[in-house]
Amino acid sequence: MVVKVYGPAYASPKRVIVCLIEKGIEFETVPVDLVKGEHRSPEYLKLQPFGSLPVIQDGDYTLYESRAIIRYYAEKYKSQGTDLLGNTIEERGLVEQWLEVEAHNYHPHIYNLTIQILFSSALGFLPDEKIIKESEEKLGKVLDVYEERLSKSKYLAGDSFSLADLSHLPFTQYLVGPMQKEYLIRERKHVSAWWDDISNRPSWKKVLEL
Amino acid sequence: MVVKVYGPAYASPKRVIVCLIEKGIEFETVPVDLVKGEHRSPEYLKLQPFGSLPVIQDGDYTLYESRAIIRYYAEKYKSQGTDLLGNTIEERGLVEQWLEVEAHNYHPHIYNLTIQILFSSALGFLPDEKIIKESEEKLGKVLDVYEERLSKSKYLAGDSFSLADLSHLPFTQYLVGPMQKEYLIRERKHVSAWWDDISNRPSWKKVLEL
Repeated sequence: MVVKVYGPAYASPKRVIVCLIEKGIEFETVPVDLVKGEHRSPEYLKLQPFGSLPVIQDGDYTLYESRAIIRYYAEKYKSQGTDLLGNTIEERGLVEQWLEVEAHNYHPHIYNLTIQILFSSALGFLPDEKIIKESEEKLGKVLDVYEERLSKSKYLAGDSFSLADLSHLPFTQYLVGPMQKEYLIRERKHVSAWWDDISNRPSWKKVLEL
Repeated sequence: MVVKVYGPAYASPKRVIVCLIEKGIEFETVPVDLVKGEHRSPEYLKLQPFGSLPVIQDGDYTLYESRAIIRYYAEKYKSQGTDLLGNTIEERGLVEQWLEVEAHNYHPHIYNLTIQILFSSALGFLPDEKIIKESEEKLGKVLDVYEERLSKSKYLAGDSFSLADLSHLPFTQYLVGPMQKEYLIRERKHVSAWWDDISNRPSWKKVLEL
């Protein structure tokens, strides 16, 4: 059964797609145009009642929330492709911890920057320089914690690449690319090496080519 | 080894404590006084570099982020106490989905209400009535989705109580108790029955007695 991924043009669905590639799972994509409001259509709301991206359909099974979907596939196909859940139950705990840090400490600031810098014009408002400045400062402080962590282990949850690292790819790509804020990564030695490592994985390069 | 849970007086650590009780895991608590700024002390920041609650120590193992800690113990002691991860891998996917919904759709609004209504005075600002009104409206819309979901299954992820339900307990208790907004629950038949069910579990009653 080929997995259908909705909304491949956007960052959160890319979190799912890179995971499927790492696991060697076949998929196809279904475009969803947020500007046209397709995520608010009755058909889409039947799949995802909050109107968010992404959602997947896998036969009769429907699942939403990108970080839930990647956990599901990492668990279901644990021994296929890259193991993304850590080598021990304690390492898996750390994978969960850093996935939560990504969601609650890292994401809110990088999301604010994304909206203000990249999407304000499409959304019809002027970028708020105060929010941009504050979000960048806060993201910098979070990255200071990452720098300390990555000085002690190669990846966030330990010695191997996991969902915790993978989950950072789509929005950090916005940061170093179109947002032109790569210096936030480069001025931190271990974060910089970590970013080079994870963003050069064949899976992520394939996502960027899609 | 007895698990040490930091910050038992606050809501997020209670998410961990109720999970430990469901799993039959022995624990002890370590008070952390946020008003005195103990979460900003160098000792605490060594355990939790972002200065958030909770953190646990289990022998040499330290873990933070409440939703990571509950996943860790639910997995590590899967066959001990209540199984909180669903009966199949697909149900576990739904547990993950509804845990994410709790974190990203439910929590932000109930957290805003908590801060504005319960903690503004301790934090030294006046409650913002506009934020309260908007947060309540948004929480109501989220609860409408829950109502629809709970009209089809007894618990959020299926037929059995799971981490997804458990994760709602501490902040919803604030809502129906000190915030005096129980009507948000009671005016939705299936949400109301669900709340009666989960809040009457012996584990949660024990947390309230602590």
